[in-house]
Amino acid sequence: MSRLTRVEGLLYGGDYNPEQWPEEVWQEDAALMREAGVSLATVGVFSWARLQPGPDAWDFGWFDRLLDLLHAHGIAVDLATATASPPAWLVRAHPDVLPVTADGVRLEFGSRQHYCPSSPVYRNAALTLTRKLAERYGDHPALALWHVHNEYGDHVTECFCPRSADHFRAWLRDRYGTVDGLNHAWGTGFWSQRYGTYDEIEPPRTAPGPVNPTQLLDWRRFCSDALLGLHRAERAVLAEITPDVPATTNFMSMFKPLDYWKWAAHEDFVSDDAYPDPADPEAHVTASLNYDLMRSLKQGTPWLLMEQAPSAVSWRPVNVPKKPGLQRLWSLQAVARGADGVLYFQWRASRAGAEKYHSALLPHGGTASRGWRETVRFGAELARLAEVAGSRVTADVAIVLDWDAWWALEADDHPSARMRWPELLRPWYAALHARGVTIDFVPPHADPTRYRAVLAPNLHLLRTADAARLTSYVRDGGHLVCGPFSGVVDEHDHIHDGGAPGPLADLLGLRVDEFWPVPDGDRVRLASGAEATLWTEWIEPTTAAVHDSYATGPLAGQPAVTRNQAGEGAAWYLSCHLPDAVGDVLDRAHRAAGRGRGPDAGGPGAAQDAAYAQKSRMIRGGVGPAIAYCVSRTDTAPVDGVRCAAVPLPPTQP
Amino acid sequence: MSRLTRVEGLLYGGDYNPEQWPEEVWQEDAALMREAGVSLATVGVFSWARLQPGPDAWDFGWFDRLLDLLHAHGIAVDLATATASPPAWLVRAHPDVLPVTADGVRLEFGSRQHYCPSSPVYRNAALTLTRKLAERYGDHPALALWHVHNEYGDHVTECFCPRSADHFRAWLRDRYGTVDGLNHAWGTGFWSQRYGTYDEIEPPRTAPGPVNPTQLLDWRRFCSDALLGLHRAERAVLAEITPDVPATTNFMSMFKPLDYWKWAAHEDFVSDDAYPDPADPEAHVTASLNYDLMRSLKQGTPWLLMEQAPSAVSWRPVNVPKKPGLQRLWSLQAVARGADGVLYFQWRASRAGAEKYHSALLPHGGTASRGWRETVRFGAELARLAEVAGSRVTADVAIVLDWDAWWALEADDHPSARMRWPELLRPWYAALHARGVTIDFVPPHADPTRYRAVLAPNLHLLRTADAARLTSYVRDGGHLVCGPFSGVVDEHDHIHDGGAPGPLADLLGLRVDEFWPVPDGDRVRLASGAEATLWTEWIEPTTAAVHDSYATGPLAGQPAVTRNQAGEGAAWYLSCHLPDAVGDVLDRAHRAAGRGRGPDAGGPGAAQDAAYAQKSRMIRGGVGPAIAYCVSRTDTAPVDGVRCAAVPLPPTQP
Amino acid sequence: MSRLTRVEGLLYGGDYNPEQWPEEVWQEDAALMREAGVSLATVGVFSWARLQPGPDAWDFGWFDRLLDLLHAHGIAVDLATATASPPAWLVRAHPDVLPVTADGVRLEFGSRQHYCPSSPVYRNAALTLTRKLAERYGDHPALALWHVHNEYGDHVTECFCPRSADHFRAWLRDRYGTVDGLNHAWGTGFWSQRYGTYDEIEPPRTAPGPVNPTQLLDWRRFCSDALLGLHRAERAVLAEITPDVPATTNFMSMFKPLDYWKWAAHEDFVSDDAYPDPADPEAHVTASLNYDLMRSLKQGTPWLLMEQAPSAVSWRPVNVPKKPGLQRLWSLQAVARGADGVLYFQWRASRAGAEKYHSALLPHGGTASRGWRETVRFGAELARLAEVAGSRVTADVAIVLDWDAWWALEADDHPSARMRWPELLRPWYAALHARGVTIDFVPPHADPTRYRAVLAPNLHLLRTADAARLTSYVRDGGHLVCGPFSGVVDEHDHIHDGGAPGPLADLLGLRVDEFWPVPDGDRVRLASGAEATLWTEWIEPTTAAVHDSYATGPLAGQPAVTRNQAGEGAAWYLSCHLPDAVGDVLDRAHRAAGRGRGPDAGGPGAAQDAAYAQKSRMIRGGVGPAIAYCVSRTDTAPVDGVRCAAVPLPPTQP
Repeated sequence: MSRLTRVEGLLYGGDYNPEQWPEEVWQEDAALMREAGVSLATVGVFSWARLQPGPDAWDFGWFDRLLDLLHAHGIAVDLATATASPPAWLVRAHPDVLPVTADGVRLEFGSRQHYCPSSPVYRNAALTLTRKLAERYGDHPALALWHVHNEYGDHVTECFCPRSADHFRAWLRDRYGTVDGLNHAWGTGFWSQRYGTYDEIEPPRTAPGPVNPTQLLDWRRFCSDALLGLHRAERAVLAEITPDVPATTNFMSMFKPLDYWKWAAHEDFVSDDAYPDPADPEAHVTASLNYDLMRSLKQGTPWLLMEQAPSAVSWRPVNVPKKPGLQRLWSLQAVARGADGVLYFQWRASRAGAEKYHSALLPHGGTASRGWRETVRFGAELARLAEVAGSRVTADVAIVLDWDAWWALEADDHPSARMRWPELLRPWYAALHARGVTIDFVPPHADPTRYRAVLAPNLHLLRTADAARLTSYVRDGGHLVCGPFSGVVDEHDHIHDGGAPGPLADLLGLRVDEFWPVPDGDRVRLASGAEATLWTEWIEPTTAAVHDSYATGPLAGQPAVTRNQAGEGAAWYLSCHLPDAVGDVLDRAHRAAGRGRGPDAGGPGAAQDAAYAQKSRMIRGGVGPAIAYCVSRTDTAPVDGVRCAAVPLPPTQP
Repeated sequence: MSRLTRVEGLLYGGDYNPEQWPEEVWQEDAALMREAGVSLATVGVFSWARLQPGPDAWDFGWFDRLLDLLHAHGIAVDLATATASPPAWLVRAHPDVLPVTADGVRLEFGSRQHYCPSSPVYRNAALTLTRKLAERYGDHPALALWHVHNEYGDHVTECFCPRSADHFRAWLRDRYGTVDGLNHAWGTGFWSQRYGTYDEIEPPRTAPGPVNPTQLLDWRRFCSDALLGLHRAERAVLAEITPDVPATTNFMSMFKPLDYWKWAAHEDFVSDDAYPDPADPEAHVTASLNYDLMRSLKQGTPWLLMEQAPSAVSWRPVNVPKKPGLQRLWSLQAVARGADGVLYFQWRASRAGAEKYHSALLPHGGTASRGWRETVRFGAELARLAEVAGSRVTADVAIVLDWDAWWALEADDHPSARMRWPELLRPWYAALHARGVTIDFVPPHADPTRYRAVLAPNLHLLRTADAARLTSYVRDGGHLVCGPFSGVVDEHDHIHDGGAPGPLADLLGLRVDEFWPVPDGDRVRLASGAEATLWTEWIEPTTAAVHDSYATGPLAGQPAVTRNQAGEGAAWYLSCHLPDAVGDVLDRAHRAAGRGRGPDAGGPGAAQDAAYAQKSRMIRGGVGPAIAYCVSRTDTAPVDGVRCAAVPLPPTQP
Repeated sequence: MSRLTRVEGLLYGGDYNPEQWPEEVWQEDAALMREAGVSLATVGVFSWARLQPGPDAWDFGWFDRLLDLLHAHGIAVDLATATASPPAWLVRAHPDVLPVTADGVRLEFGSRQHYCPSSPVYRNAALTLTRKLAERYGDHPALALWHVHNEYGDHVTECFCPRSADHFRAWLRDRYGTVDGLNHAWGTGFWSQRYGTYDEIEPPRTAPGPVNPTQLLDWRRFCSDALLGLHRAERAVLAEITPDVPATTNFMSMFKPLDYWKWAAHEDFVSDDAYPDPADPEAHVTASLNYDLMRSLKQGTPWLLMEQAPSAVSWRPVNVPKKPGLQRLWSLQAVARGADGVLYFQWRASRAGAEKYHSALLPHGGTASRGWRETVRFGAELARLAEVAGSRVTADVAIVLDWDAWWALEADDHPSARMRWPELLRPWYAALHARGVTIDFVPPHADPTRYRAVLAPNLHLLRTADAARLTSYVRDGGHLVCGPFSGVVDEHDHIHDGGAPGPLADLLGLRVDEFWPVPDGDRVRLASGAEATLWTEWIEPTTAAVHDSYATGPLAGQPAVTRNQAGEGAAWYLSCHLPDAVGDVLDRAHRAAGRGRGPDAGGPGAAQDAAYAQKSRMIRGGVGPAIAYCVSRTDTAPVDGVRCAAVPLPPTQP
């Protein structure tokens, strides 16, 4: 399919929750949607209790009328399988549908997402509902897209009940075969933790002290897989009944609990819920990062911004609205980063419930509100950008992202509890963003040869095979820049032979003698003037050349940043966290490339222009400047009202 | 009754816990009470375990001797029903007497107030004890007052056990009739929360995410009512057996969990436990506010300061004592605010237990201590103020306080989690206090016409009928000043049609386009120079005149403070929180009134004099100056030792 | 025995966990141990699951081979009873082996130390294992020492399960006899807490409010005793089977949960696990304090540093390594403070598990690492210090330490929650440390007459008999300096008659009128210029002379520091916490002594020289200077790399 759904152009619309309104309001809604240029409405996300009022009771009439109404107004439907929040009668009849915390507390009904991912009762009920919906609406003319479940992992990412324990044991058995395999992988020789049988194993509930880190790592893998299992089961039902209707589930940006590389393989296209904070002056960088990731999850194919807020959200401690023009600017940013549609949560602001203060396309104040005026104006503008749909963004530089490495990095009992993947990643991404370099994310097992440079801000867990792939890439002329505390453990969270950087030792031309974390608040200066926080390392170069050294602190005089020529390429190593100066090192890496097949044939700095040109080629009819502005500069600009307003609107008549 | 009890003059005394002492100490206590001028002793608060050592065992002999002894020394008794802390044998025989947390933890015996408010076993046992006490001591000559239970809601304000769940369901059924009524009120169309029957409903135990806000609001109402139910049951027993003995229960100042407007209707007079913090330089303002509230709960009738600390308490992290003279000053403050008695916790300092470091009228150091000297001196002084008893305080300005609105305001998932009723109220009250304006509190359903001005620092939840009452009040010449985030939701916590300020839109002459909370630490300047924190709003005046505007921040140039002439009166609106400048707005409102029946005929500023004069008329014999000082200035003065000492003592010979 | 074990000289080595490694690695380990000069290896600490793979399955072959191997390499064995972490099969067969929190959460397997101290099943299993090991290895030539259990109280110091409740009741019955005795001791007249039978008593689980403080105090006593009961049971088995093999269990420095005065009586010698933080510039003072305590626990006999980290640990939020030379310096510090051996956790760095980032004598980097080079170099140096073994350290000044007083001091609902024993103690110790005064710790029931001065930074709980002993000590010429909030309660946590300082009132010549804690962040100046934080008191001297007074704050002008001449000696009282100026008071006390049998005959200041001289006399062969440096100055020196390097190494050839 050359577009996300059968709907043409860039999608526009949002979540619509008709259960909250009498049917006479639906009429007004449909008319106003048309006025606003809405092309796609997500319905059914929280309809389970209404669609199935009892174990054997089904009520589809109201839903039939709703879909007919929307279709009559030319609005396509993104139809939810409605399975994310099971009804009260189900949890009362089967209390073990409710999830249980690590402390053994069974969480109560009254919120949402109240299900144990391993509950057979829940799973069966969810699949029955999915089947019913697919059978009834598979041929409905309004149906354009399946919205599978909703925000997997929101609120509940894990359950510690006996059912989950059974499921975990089965998953482990499948992974390790004999219990000896598990004993080896978990290193149960440590602390007298050896298991005699799988039956002795439980989830990592609250324990007296630190829990086995490999058990925790496998638990994270299992929890992602358990939810993915639910997802795949719903997908299978839909694929069976409506093979031609595309399906997606809404991701939640760079979300730690779910390994989206594995998930994305099961999506027809990626969709994302993104809520950058208007109170954060750097929110556009975070947004850009997440959008680049969403685009990368399926190798650059267009994606859908499934949810964003028209203005304020309601779940932060202080929820600042978006200034006039900001929702337009941030929406165009998503388009420029590869989104072929911009949807919102939600269409009409709720009058009751936990999200009634969340902004909506149609605010409480109705059509008299500023919000509504922006809704209508931007809908019209987006319609004029239709031809952007389907175009691609290209990048010459990739950042390696690995959920296994992320999980392992943030385990307890590490040299420093401050080493968090988002914090480590952030300055690398921000430096490239500021330089206008377009970034792709890649998994560690991907072939990186099409990129001029590969950056690894952290690869704490690194499989030997992946290290070999990176080594070949560099020897064949690639450029790798690797951050600290990398190559430390293998897939079982065991320290690599000889310690860090393990299988990267030859490629980087050094070994790490000792990790030297930086106490909170301290800063270590380098000879170049750069300042390190959080982390330094005592490294011993073997073949690497030293490009920067520690000038202060316990490691003063010792190497900090190195470069190792390897074959046709080069591998840089940063042994410290440089919150403000990563960009300088990247610039140096770019300049040092200088010749051969490295970044000099374009280099990090050139990618901006390439992306700009590519995007421009795709854009016709005068809308180019606005989008180009987004690609090249806008989303790095301060987000105050004045600057936003300065972004040129495309001409009124395309 | 023209006085609180049959005891004449201002009551003086405190809690006395004879269970902690051998009987020989009682003799010394009685003698020292007489020396100190104690007129009323509260006994029995924690006597249950001693009065009833087993299910069918009763031991009243020691208590008979105690009451006889006190009576023989001329000390009247405030007799507790002793029901607040059930004995060990009861909770061991019936573990479900113990309360359960939202996480399902059954709280253990070994502290106090360990009872589930909905436990039938507890209720029956408590009523049996109450009846026994009333039957035995109803005619005892020492009995002057019933002290019903103790500090309802202290420690345990809610219980999540199955008994409480049953009780909650019954309460809901009573409130809503059909489950459809509840589904509408709770907005269960949201998040698939629809209930098929009442049996599916549970208390708001810990859930995966945000819990239904109307469920939480009803839970708060229920919890207040559940405790009130216990209280009313004890009251009914007492009313049956001793119809002529007054009864009260000790409130805990402005206490969020209990709707004291509902409670006060069941008291013969209001009594309060107040513990202003000597380490807080503004503690006297807090105290003043609470005392004004206590006076207001029963429409200005005298009340009783049932507990205060002679010096330090023991439950704060750091418990600073009262400087010499401060307990006298703060006691006179309560008298000036309408208290007809000043009692303390407790008479003799405990040697063991969790409150042994709480100060007492008779400290550990005995009669050699500074504390004891102050006890005796102030007892004598208070005796000379006897004629103050029964006099009234009058006020021309009222502040609207509504527990429903308070609870709704502080719900989760709001635009800002920083909007807390005490914080919003505080600057309004403090500004009037600094100006010497006496304040009454009124519930939202009261007729406010006898007040020249009505202030509503916040009325987040506002019933349409109450809004109509305010509207009539203004149209008939009243003056209303309304704070931000008001008129937002109805009694079910549903957003009012058209959004804020809902049913006040016409009266205030504006609508709120969007709430614009202020990030932590930020300040927004107004054209007048005033500074807003926490909250601002984008408002659109319809008929209102703009009196101040935002000068900085995202709303710069837009209106901030408005005034709408409505009939004979005027309604002001502050769209922001002005921690330091509310008083300036109130002054402006006062000046703008200028003519007609508004505050100009006395105005906020004049109330001080009125109160002064009124009080003065009631006071004879030279004690006037001290009290007047309290009314007019003292409790706004810094509370250092020097200033306290400067308060003139009344002459020694009346 | 004149030495700790049959091994001569200062012990060197560490924990060795062979379960984590294939047997071929053992060969390398043994050879490298010999190279490093290791004389003692601790084995078996976490071997239970491997030694006993099932209820009736035993596997000793691998352990036989290990001990033979070590013996063949001349390495003696500190053999753990292996009981600290029971195997999975035991906890699955008997879930009540797992401990339960105050909230009722049963803690899960997967960490370590997962046992209920009162579980009969656990106890029986542990004693069976102990017996098996003693029978099998009691005559093994490698066996030099029993390592009983491991770090009692680490992670789990208390359990709230029904078994523990039974045990607690039995302990209480044993302590109090009738329930009336308990009711008196616990002051159950307070808050209606009277018990009719022991069966009504439960552990202090989470309760609605503050729990009975004497119950909590007894709970702490019980928890220490419950673990000690386990320890004694293992000791009894070992004493029966191997009466000639010394035994010790590793203490954890000044550890609040365990009353080490009681524990030390059951050790052949004291051993300690100490982990001063290299990131703390005052860590050497903390270490010194702990080492002095360890030496004092058995009246000055040599002790063993059982565990320390060669470099970084892994359980702090940020784990900073030791700079080059620092492990040597801090090890010599322990030797100078009386340790006859220096062991480490652990020999070879783990590749997996929760402690894989903990430093080791043989790091991940192997023999190429800096760590290994220091291991070898220091082993050689220590061998040259062999003659130091067995020598004694003497002190003229003692600090009173009482676990009962510590526990009572830190109870809730006190005048200030900031009064923590380590914080109160610290400035006293640091002042003496800075002056080079060697300190012993003594329990409150010890005869202090051999000390020139006795310091009591705090004795919140003070038995009358202990007060009498101190009084005699002073009257006979001793010098006592007592800190604030002392003499307040008796052994039942009841306030002493007449209040503080209770039985010290005559000795100190004053009474305390009121405690006057200092709010957080405030400082009170004294006339001398000293500044108090946390705490002041309103005191009324009777016979004491005032040596310093409050100059600011609410107590300005009142006495702060007093001295009372009593018989031949004098008793000083500090009514406040002086974080920086305690040393000045101690100096003044020293000078004021001036004549008689007081500190003037040597005084605090002279102790340094005495210790120096004594130590010097013991040391021959040129190693004296390094040790003397440690005694007299080194461990007060800043611990930066330069200064460390300046410590003279002993000559290479002894």
